[in-house]
Amino acid sequence: MEQALEKLRQTAPLVQSITNYVVMNNTANALLAVGASPIMAHAHKEVRDMVSIVHALVVNIGTLDDYWVESMALAAQHALELGKPWVLDPVGAGATPYRNEVLGQLIAFKPTVIRGNASEILSLANVAVASRGVDSANRSEEAVDAGRQLATQFDTVVCISGASDFVIDRHRTVRIENGHEWMPRVTGMGCTASVMIGAFLGAEEDPFEATVNAMTVMGVAGELAAEKSTGPGSLQLHFYDALFSLTDKQLLDRAKLTRNEPT
Amino acid sequence: MEQALEKLRQTAPLVQSITNYVVMNNTANALLAVGASPIMAHAHKEVRDMVSIVHALVVNIGTLDDYWVESMALAAQHALELGKPWVLDPVGAGATPYRNEVLGQLIAFKPTVIRGNASEILSLANVAVASRGVDSANRSEEAVDAGRQLATQFDTVVCISGASDFVIDRHRTVRIENGHEWMPRVTGMGCTASVMIGAFLGAEEDPFEATVNAMTVMGVAGELAAEKSTGPGSLQLHFYDALFSLTDKQLLDRAKLTRNEPT
Amino acid sequence: MEQALEKLRQTAPLVQSITNYVVMNNTANALLAVGASPIMAHAHKEVRDMVSIVHALVVNIGTLDDYWVESMALAAQHALELGKPWVLDPVGAGATPYRNEVLGQLIAFKPTVIRGNASEILSLANVAVASRGVDSANRSEEAVDAGRQLATQFDTVVCISGASDFVIDRHRTVRIENGHEWMPRVTGMGCTASVMIGAFLGAEEDPFEATVNAMTVMGVAGELAAEKSTGPGSLQLHFYDALFSLTDKQLLDRAKLTRNEPT
Repeated sequence: MEQALEKLRQTAPLVQSITNYVVMNNTANALLAVGASPIMAHAHKEVRDMVSIVHALVVNIGTLDDYWVESMALAAQHALELGKPWVLDPVGAGATPYRNEVLGQLIAFKPTVIRGNASEILSLANVAVASRGVDSANRSEEAVDAGRQLATQFDTVVCISGASDFVIDRHRTVRIENGHEWMPRVTGMGCTASVMIGAFLGAEEDPFEATVNAMTVMGVAGELAAEKSTGPGSLQLHFYDALFSLTDKQLLDRAKLTRNEPT
Repeated sequence: MEQALEKLRQTAPLVQSITNYVVMNNTANALLAVGASPIMAHAHKEVRDMVSIVHALVVNIGTLDDYWVESMALAAQHALELGKPWVLDPVGAGATPYRNEVLGQLIAFKPTVIRGNASEILSLANVAVASRGVDSANRSEEAVDAGRQLATQFDTVVCISGASDFVIDRHRTVRIENGHEWMPRVTGMGCTASVMIGAFLGAEEDPFEATVNAMTVMGVAGELAAEKSTGPGSLQLHFYDALFSLTDKQLLDRAKLTRNEPT
Repeated sequence: MEQALEKLRQTAPLVQSITNYVVMNNTANALLAVGASPIMAHAHKEVRDMVSIVHALVVNIGTLDDYWVESMALAAQHALELGKPWVLDPVGAGATPYRNEVLGQLIAFKPTVIRGNASEILSLANVAVASRGVDSANRSEEAVDAGRQLATQFDTVVCISGASDFVIDRHRTVRIENGHEWMPRVTGMGCTASVMIGAFLGAEEDPFEATVNAMTVMGVAGELAAEKSTGPGSLQLHFYDALFSLTDKQLLDRAKLTRNEPT
């Protein structure tokens, strides 16, 4: 993590998102603020061309419909063909049969990282959960076993975000305890975490460490923003300012990481 | 109104919006800030499944097209079937024949509440008005008779928002004089009022009182936000902070309501 | 430029945008803050009706797909038929063959103004450029000759935005050196410039001067906002506040314009 932000800013990775309408503005601003560049393009006629020029792809199913699902599949498939890293954000997994069906289709394209809240990760791992729509009714701790199962089955990195974030692969687990309680009161913070992972995937070889870096940046920027804020409205704007001015030294000083031994 | 916010926050209602692209982010943030949870889903294959898990539905025709109109109709019909409350926001009523045709279709599914500006309510009631697009060229007072006619004809609650807001049913009228002149300079404040009504419908039996509560919360939060702001940009963010920290006591202290005798 | 803002606010022009999902909220807020009114409507069944009631149209291809391209073409064609001014924002020109094909189709409807960054203007003028997606890899100075060629060929005004902005027609060039380095770190500032041009086109006869006014307002508002900001997050909100309170006197005092002799 020593020079994670410096490396990111030197690379200035292009990150393509095929994401939901609600958060497009947030995620574009977060990428610009941290030093990356967003691209949003979903037309079937160009989605593969875009994948070929970006550093990483992020697919988020929040406001999916048939046209967009086809865009997501075309993009994910092309990322796989080109060996480019891509992130799957399974928003609302488990809330409807349609979402589950689409996720089954997308996961076949071998996402480099899957990031969701506990309910979404539990649902993806076929654990029956009570859905709260797009919010999580479960704590992230409860989904660690399901996350490991997913990571092993699909040979991917799984990130479970929540009050504590977990980054998991077949053997490793990192727990990150940065962040602030107001962050879930701002729409799209989870989706922003996913594009942040995309940005770090564009600048860092190891997807596991890229994910740890991204989630730590999210948490630390959230803490710094909260210190200047009076609620979730002001948090959102200070969050971009914090991403913009965050240094690697601040990141290291404030990171609260626990690295577990391989299990 | 005594414990309106407390009740809302205990319920934490899930509110599904099928709304326009411009305001999705705002309305999601407002719901999260006040203590509710937003869901945005419009795919024909899941829109009814989502209606079945939420407390209330909001349909806003701002950026309609044929696919989305079908989503709106599917959702509104299912809300009617399940007896779930739903709000119709007739953005731009009267601006084009297409909008009027779509509104005729949607209103048949018996919205629990209709909220619009004066021009929209006049247009819905078939009063010829000069359109200003999605802004209102009329004062809310001018639409009270049209609102009563609509409320009676469709057995619904009608809310006319403007410098003064009116909540109307067959017999009752409440005039709310909270709010701030900068609020119409922030995009989507009307749309936000509609989802706020959706949130209170999820936590309060009587749709008339739920609408009064929602509009008073909007106005009081707008006033509190304006006190800290230097224009419509800062108003928007302080508005979320105000929704987040608003108490029932503040609400009661600042509410400027006039309840009229049945006419 | 003497009374540019006063004239705009008296006219309160209706500006229709057919634009990308990422920036709809920003551009609507900017129009409201400066004193104009936004309309976003793209349904094939109403897009021409909307063109007929607005002062100006803005077409931005950021998140295009086939349905939206048809909406753009219908609207642009109708603007041409009615003699209404319209602005073309060729987002990501050159990034994919599909974008180039669509731009070829739209430019045939004779945009009143074309506004893009240097890479986009170079690409539109068929100069081979290395694409950075939707960001510019070129300085605006490098695109002045290409801009003049476009302006001459299509009898239009061309605006190249960047650290310095250029407004160009067949004979004239104005260089504007207002603005702030954080502005490109806020998503949609270019798109906002395009709708601002739309607003001034609705209030000013000469499209060249309207474009100069709009770009100067953008730059000066950005400078005023930066003085109060700690990064791109706070810049965005202070930018709306600055647009809202900006006066013609401030505009004249701070404008850094260089008008070149006809070349």
